[in-house]
Amino acid sequence: MREISIETPTLIVDEARVRRNIAFMAEKARRQGVRLRPHFKTHQSAAIGDWFRQAGVEAITVSSVQMAQYFARHGWRDITIAFPFNVRQSAAINALAQQVRLGILVESPEALAAVRQKLHADLDLWFEIDDGSGRSGLDWQGASNASISALLDAVGDCPNLHPRGLLTHAGRIYRARGAAEIRQVYQETVERMQQARRGLALELSVGDTPGCTLADDLGAVDEIRPGNFVFYDVQQLMLGVCRADQIALAVACPVVAKYPSRQEVVIYGGAVHLSKDTVLVDGQAVYGLAANGPAALPCDAGWGDPLPGASVARLTQEHGVLRLPSPWIDQIKIGDLLYVLPAHSCLAVSALGAGGVLTLDGQLLPTLHSPA
Amino acid sequence: MREISIETPTLIVDEARVRRNIAFMAEKARRQGVRLRPHFKTHQSAAIGDWFRQAGVEAITVSSVQMAQYFARHGWRDITIAFPFNVRQSAAINALAQQVRLGILVESPEALAAVRQKLHADLDLWFEIDDGSGRSGLDWQGASNASISALLDAVGDCPNLHPRGLLTHAGRIYRARGAAEIRQVYQETVERMQQARRGLALELSVGDTPGCTLADDLGAVDEIRPGNFVFYDVQQLMLGVCRADQIALAVACPVVAKYPSRQEVVIYGGAVHLSKDTVLVDGQAVYGLAANGPAALPCDAGWGDPLPGASVARLTQEHGVLRLPSPWIDQIKIGDLLYVLPAHSCLAVSALGAGGVLTLDGQLLPTLHSPA
Repeated sequence: MREISIETPTLIVDEARVRRNIAFMAEKARRQGVRLRPHFKTHQSAAIGDWFRQAGVEAITVSSVQMAQYFARHGWRDITIAFPFNVRQSAAINALAQQVRLGILVESPEALAAVRQKLHADLDLWFEIDDGSGRSGLDWQGASNASISALLDAVGDCPNLHPRGLLTHAGRIYRARGAAEIRQVYQETVERMQQARRGLALELSVGDTPGCTLADDLGAVDEIRPGNFVFYDVQQLMLGVCRADQIALAVACPVVAKYPSRQEVVIYGGAVHLSKDTVLVDGQAVYGLAANGPAALPCDAGWGDPLPGASVARLTQEHGVLRLPSPWIDQIKIGDLLYVLPAHSCLAVSALGAGGVLTLDGQLLPTLHSPA
Repeated sequence: MREISIETPTLIVDEARVRRNIAFMAEKARRQGVRLRPHFKTHQSAAIGDWFRQAGVEAITVSSVQMAQYFARHGWRDITIAFPFNVRQSAAINALAQQVRLGILVESPEALAAVRQKLHADLDLWFEIDDGSGRSGLDWQGASNASISALLDAVGDCPNLHPRGLLTHAGRIYRARGAAEIRQVYQETVERMQQARRGLALELSVGDTPGCTLADDLGAVDEIRPGNFVFYDVQQLMLGVCRADQIALAVACPVVAKYPSRQEVVIYGGAVHLSKDTVLVDGQAVYGLAANGPAALPCDAGWGDPLPGASVARLTQEHGVLRLPSPWIDQIKIGDLLYVLPAHSCLAVSALGAGGVLTLDGQLLPTLHSPA
């Protein structure tokens, strides 16, 4: 295979790690009799989707209609759009629902009235529950059971609408400190969902990477929808959800300037490549950690462990300023690559996905945003 | 013209405001005898570039080789890549420099050695100075004059390398509070650049939107390189650099859920559309402000002033949570559009530019990242 020289910030995946991450979650779900409907917003790649399929996955989650269309074109036939129904995309949703089993999220009488008026294709309805995270969904407490019953009544005899279950995303789990608290939030969320459902014949769908990775018992739910675990990232590392050697995505960034007196280098890798999402490392908000890795692909070995003390401290549009203490800064040259493990891998993929994703053995995997 | 229905988060520009912003800066530079070399990373659009050309602009700044290639294809013949020379892109730089007058940034003997070794096309060299902002460039103090002389010596008799001047970006100006302090930082930067240059026959290039907008006297410099002023944004508004009615870019976002008890709505408009850049408004970090605007284009009038108290408080990948106090939340319906004025317009354009930019009269302007 021809050597690939990396010229600009480039997404690199370690396929072996990705396949191990997928196998872990698929096996865990299978053992506990829970459907794994992974969230594909993290990788947005049909090729990586195939690796899930090879692990037995048949149903997926996406976060936009466009992403649902893309994965439908690549053979996926059971897709949930885990985002509140956007009435302005009714035509596209109707068209797509004629090709695949499509699930959408509804949470209010107003949204359901729009669904009844605009959507005529067969659709699974998931009623979104807010488990206390404060983003979207019916509040799990108090009135929620009555609210769900009212929504079910409002669906009424609509022949194309099929109420399927209650769905939540426990975003609040990212405020947990440590594994024990993550397990507790996960369990609490499952209990809150059961309470919201009481007496109703509906499925339960939960799922986030911290809870699904760490919970020993996934609980009495029908499906889980984690996404980030396919790559993990520094946020998951700092939460104690993964080890560094499970992080399967890095952004290879050329070094363009060195400042030994500041113990900093400037990399080609800025806000438009890494996103401006941060994670606290040793009390400081950083955009990622950095490791050494191959200067060109294909390569047998991937990147190493994060270099101690090396982190992306500041970002502007195209520049990254990376703290790089001695002895690392003394060993690096202008033109070398550093492998940045991003704070948040989902957003790095969104930022850079138009260029595809390179595997260590030099295959370019297309994504939703790369030219076909 | 056919009515354009906005279905997903969409960049909208107010052409009249853009043209006024361009005219203001072009006229100011002309009056003071300073070359305006605007930074095109903000809009990344050949069509908006034409509006600059109509205002007499002939030289431009970009932040990447790819952006330089794009604007060269669209007729620009004098381009500075305001980013430290990336040796891994030498082939592309050589090719481009044969078509246009191309300037690159150098700041160290190590980088200059790479330039001498890899670049054989005619190139303008700008030596980058760090005016105290702490990102990239030679420190302006002390040794800098000697360092510049050493770089000039190292260029030596290289026939294709043409030392042109000293260049800086005063990023520290974004830490200023209020107009007086901005004017002071701008003036200080000009003085620091003059001190770095003393005795050398080199041009001076400075420029950032706050300083170039507010400084009454642009000072003894040869060119200015502001970029953001073409659109401005909430960061500039909060710095006192622009008025709300000068902000020329908004992201139209569908409302997908309403929570009157929280005084919040969820919009389709998340981190992948607005970026995760924030700005402090009333002491709270927000991702943008929100205004009412047209439900479809073309439309005679644009968006209104920001709604009091309305701001994007939280973002996940595709969701935006927008504080929307009464009476605004009582008047809005699911499916309506809100116009988000982003914290940082450059990053919103980078995030959403693949879809082009819509004008209020319904033209779709292509960008670097949109299909040709």
